[in-house]
Amino acid sequence: MASGCRIGPSILNSDLAALGAECSRMLDCGADYLHLDVMDGHFVPNITFGHPVVESLRKQLGQEPFFDMHMMVARPEQWVKPMAVAGANQYTFHLEATDNPGALIKDIRENGMKSCPCCHPKVQLGFVLPLLQVGLAIKPATTVDQLAPWANQIDMALVMTVEPGFGGQKFMEDMMPKVQWLRTQFPSLDIEVDGGVGPDTIHKCAEAGANMIVSGSAIMKSADPRSVINLLRNVCSEAAQKRCLDR
Amino acid sequence: MASGCRIGPSILNSDLAALGAECSRMLDCGADYLHLDVMDGHFVPNITFGHPVVESLRKQLGQEPFFDMHMMVARPEQWVKPMAVAGANQYTFHLEATDNPGALIKDIRENGMKSCPCCHPKVQLGFVLPLLQVGLAIKPATTVDQLAPWANQIDMALVMTVEPGFGGQKFMEDMMPKVQWLRTQFPSLDIEVDGGVGPDTIHKCAEAGANMIVSGSAIMKSADPRSVINLLRNVCSEAAQKRCLDR
Repeated sequence: MASGCRIGPSILNSDLAALGAECSRMLDCGADYLHLDVMDGHFVPNITFGHPVVESLRKQLGQEPFFDMHMMVARPEQWVKPMAVAGANQYTFHLEATDNPGALIKDIRENGMKSCPCCHPKVQLGFVLPLLQVGLAIKPATTVDQLAPWANQIDMALVMTVEPGFGGQKFMEDMMPKVQWLRTQFPSLDIEVDGGVGPDTIHKCAEAGANMIVSGSAIMKSADPRSVINLLRNVCSEAAQKRCLDR
Repeated sequence: MASGCRIGPSILNSDLAALGAECSRMLDCGADYLHLDVMDGHFVPNITFGHPVVESLRKQLGQEPFFDMHMMVARPEQWVKPMAVAGANQYTFHLEATDNPGALIKDIRENGMKSCPCCHPKVQLGFVLPLLQVGLAIKPATTVDQLAPWANQIDMALVMTVEPGFGGQKFMEDMMPKVQWLRTQFPSLDIEVDGGVGPDTIHKCAEAGANMIVSGSAIMKSADPRSVINLLRNVCSEAAQKRCLDR
């Protein structure tokens, strides 16, 4: 089984002028990790933020929170090292954005390994580089067959449940067969869903087998984010236990 | 004469996890405007932030502060409308990034004019669109001759005094003849300098004729930003008065 059900708020629709405070609020409300949406205006028609912002967030939030970087960028090869240095924990790139996923996976792994305290300039300043995990994302139009060849080399597969680019979109239920197929084929793979996920749609995701749940507006705009996070995690955990018993 | 000497801190090297607070701090210290660096990772090898961040800043800081958007992006045509809606006051694009500066200038003007309170959806929500001014920027390798044909159609010319992309670089004094030539040819044009400008280099900029001064590290990292801002403004104003008397 994938390692537990985790909820990662997406801060795309939050107050971006106070991103550190918004992230802190989410962590205080029980978020298991932070899903950070990087957009360059080329892969998607929106620009959010890049590694300088991630570096500032890491400084403010400390070493503990897990940063899942969702790289909606045209040249994902370009940002592996800057993101590793800035303090990313997972580098989730889009299959559609690269011609050579294998080389990129290797590069992410190697940058994650460069955390030797004797050789990295940032480390000498008291900055500890975390190990970098690999996430691989597919847009709605990309089939899961295209992701499958890489599934054994990655830590997480992200199945987009909206077209990437903006928050607040409607959940695409027809992506669930992709999640289901991945869960059956790769029982121990972390599978993430992102887009339109909230209390109304979590059951579909959980039943299909997703265990990493990105939720933006549903958490950020709630008067009680803690309850929403708990609800999403509970639904997800129950479905995972049921799957376990059924096997 | 250009309308007064103004100091615009660049927040590139500030705490980007608390951008609103950093901008407030600069305004409280007497900043005349904010110089906001937008980078898409294609025109320059860095990604900073885009219009969603600007929208959050505008919400937090209110209508008064002047936002000079320095668009270090590969397709400046793409962001005029989003930036106008987000609350930009000036759209400063790079001559090197477009094949048709004339059309882009026209488009910026037209988007600035779309502030009619009856027709814009955001305005109905109590959001007042500011009039959008036009800035035109040139990188160090671009000659001022290339900018000249557009000088009468723009509000401001930005002469870069470092290669754009990162904060904290060394001031290029050999850019000053560009500023001097522009000041002579276009006495009423706002001329901005950006890159490595601080107490050590302001005299060169002021004497050459710059009246809009972007300063990043020198202000942001000072223990007394107010004094630095005042010093920069005073040097600049004195040089402008001297020019006035000399004519």
